[in-house]
Amino acid sequence: MAPGLAATALVPSLGLARQAVSKDRLIIRSARPEDLETPVHLLTSWITPNELFYVRSHFYTPSIAESAWRLRVDGDVGSPMELTLDEVRRLRSTTTVVTLECAGNGRAFFDPPVAGVQWEKGAVGTAAWTGVRLADVLRTAGVRASARYVWLDGADEGLGRAPDFIRSVPMDKAMHPDTLLAYRMNGETLLVPHGFPLRAIVPGWEGAYSVKWLTHIQVSTRDHDGPFVQAGYRYPRRPVPPGTLVSPADTVPLRALPVKSLITSPADNSMVPRSAVRISGFAWAGDEEVRRVDVSTDNGRTWMTAQLGRDRARYAWRPFEYLWRPSDAGSYVVLSRAVDSRGLVQPIVPEWNPAGYVWNAIDQVRLNVAS
Amino acid sequence: MAPGLAATALVPSLGLARQAVSKDRLIIRSARPEDLETPVHLLTSWITPNELFYVRSHFYTPSIAESAWRLRVDGDVGSPMELTLDEVRRLRSTTTVVTLECAGNGRAFFDPPVAGVQWEKGAVGTAAWTGVRLADVLRTAGVRASARYVWLDGADEGLGRAPDFIRSVPMDKAMHPDTLLAYRMNGETLLVPHGFPLRAIVPGWEGAYSVKWLTHIQVSTRDHDGPFVQAGYRYPRRPVPPGTLVSPADTVPLRALPVKSLITSPADNSMVPRSAVRISGFAWAGDEEVRRVDVSTDNGRTWMTAQLGRDRARYAWRPFEYLWRPSDAGSYVVLSRAVDSRGLVQPIVPEWNPAGYVWNAIDQVRLNVAS
Repeated sequence: MAPGLAATALVPSLGLARQAVSKDRLIIRSARPEDLETPVHLLTSWITPNELFYVRSHFYTPSIAESAWRLRVDGDVGSPMELTLDEVRRLRSTTTVVTLECAGNGRAFFDPPVAGVQWEKGAVGTAAWTGVRLADVLRTAGVRASARYVWLDGADEGLGRAPDFIRSVPMDKAMHPDTLLAYRMNGETLLVPHGFPLRAIVPGWEGAYSVKWLTHIQVSTRDHDGPFVQAGYRYPRRPVPPGTLVSPADTVPLRALPVKSLITSPADNSMVPRSAVRISGFAWAGDEEVRRVDVSTDNGRTWMTAQLGRDRARYAWRPFEYLWRPSDAGSYVVLSRAVDSRGLVQPIVPEWNPAGYVWNAIDQVRLNVAS
Repeated sequence: MAPGLAATALVPSLGLARQAVSKDRLIIRSARPEDLETPVHLLTSWITPNELFYVRSHFYTPSIAESAWRLRVDGDVGSPMELTLDEVRRLRSTTTVVTLECAGNGRAFFDPPVAGVQWEKGAVGTAAWTGVRLADVLRTAGVRASARYVWLDGADEGLGRAPDFIRSVPMDKAMHPDTLLAYRMNGETLLVPHGFPLRAIVPGWEGAYSVKWLTHIQVSTRDHDGPFVQAGYRYPRRPVPPGTLVSPADTVPLRALPVKSLITSPADNSMVPRSAVRISGFAWAGDEEVRRVDVSTDNGRTWMTAQLGRDRARYAWRPFEYLWRPSDAGSYVVLSRAVDSRGLVQPIVPEWNPAGYVWNAIDQVRLNVAS
């Protein structure tokens, strides 16, 4: 936590005036800390509305007075500095559309089950983020050539002796022109649950890098040694059998999201007419491009290439669509699988890992064609 | 039950001298009636040894004295007859290698769960069956042109008012030269659990057509109206959502088995060396031929064509093999999928049906490559 925040009250967000995510439409996976999932059938537009965007919080949502807030930048820099929100807003701004996805999205589908928030498929969303380039801030602070990591610290805190939530971004990603410190989301001031007043946007990488309620950026010659870097958000170096315990030494940090697709319409288990069924959804691939999305309406026996929407932003999900004319009534397993620019494709069997991260098995919905 | 059997004692088979299936190596799914599954890792030879061949019994295993046994053939025939076992053996004999599979094989994998014997993958096996052609017997009995179904009745009986186990074979399948009445299995007299003294072999079709302990063949102008024809061994006319109740009127009889493959070696969850791994198994396709088997060692991302063994018998499973050189240590999901002569391929998601029949999703094993 940054020094400037010492006087800031840390209270749960429930009932705050600034809070405007739609609690009656989101799925409450956890009330405190606040973890809210978007129902997949509401993910129908390329841009996810702010009030429907999933919320992932590690600790209690801080209520930050804009006047008291400062962003402190220090560590391996020549000119440590502290910026007010107005000062951040006066820096050259940029807007990028980025898909964010929680590393634990899909955790509920692992077998054997894995502890943690039981996200199904909706801990993902896309927004236009406006802010300053992290690289610009780091250069202004005189980042040194010896710097290798940038530690991002949010104002959220746990109870008692809970460790500070700090994430560490390697230098090349931190200096990438698409890595932002965002204060606007889809043209509006950030909502409190989404990180007001400032959140990092580390595009293509699992969502926990995009630290909310950002107060402190510390540049370092070494990686951070806290639990959210050395224990959490890590993946086995080599795939392990389901149920295996893996020591942190045998893990690597999660970074870019793997290729994935999501059928958002028609909704799973819905009844559809026999005439023509528009199967649509989104596909994304972390740092890579989506090369192709295939759709199967016969349980994976045959695959058709879906139409891809225009590639409108490098780190945003890409819409896909397939027009299906069912030959007969009945209940169908409809699948989608995306392929990235390296030719990597979604797996068939979920790839179990001890913390239940990056579930990206081919997507499936059941569609019941009326007779 | 045939009249000649009125005096036959019906006792459970446990402890009978003639009984020689390997109860310590088979998996006992039910002790009475006797339902025994072959562990997949023992299915390593093209011919399944008699003592390891799966056993499916609907009722209690009858103990039949050869001297008392008769096969009665009547109904829509010009010359009803009754044959002793010696008389059957004196008819022109033939030997065919046929794979039999229980319609419920794989039932344990359906979600939601389905009532019935919880077979996993081993209710399947292949044997050389020696006997007489059913067509020869029917012609000898003077089968009439009006005949449309052949009813097969076994000597097994349930407790109290349980209905007789009778299955009905349409005329063209009954007259097919590969449909047999078998008294030898892999060169030996049938074991009691496998149907001594005589069992039907209806190749390519789900196993329950291959009625054991056969005593009565009734030719008819109509289908049988018993529960094992009108209620059991039926499949929804159209695919239904998991958990749906389906009325018998909306079902059709199960007949030919669908295309399927089974990885028999290495065993699921086993540790394998990094040098070279011989992935092998069998594929079968009911009345169709196996056209191709694909193997994936990367969880369905890419598929390689396996080598198919020689096609040695039309209704026998076909061995396949793929030599894998893992690039790295770790735990791998290895899949197999077979394609039949019509181009039909195994589905990805198990196709749920109310009685849990013909599970034929692509097969998967987990192989752990040593470092």
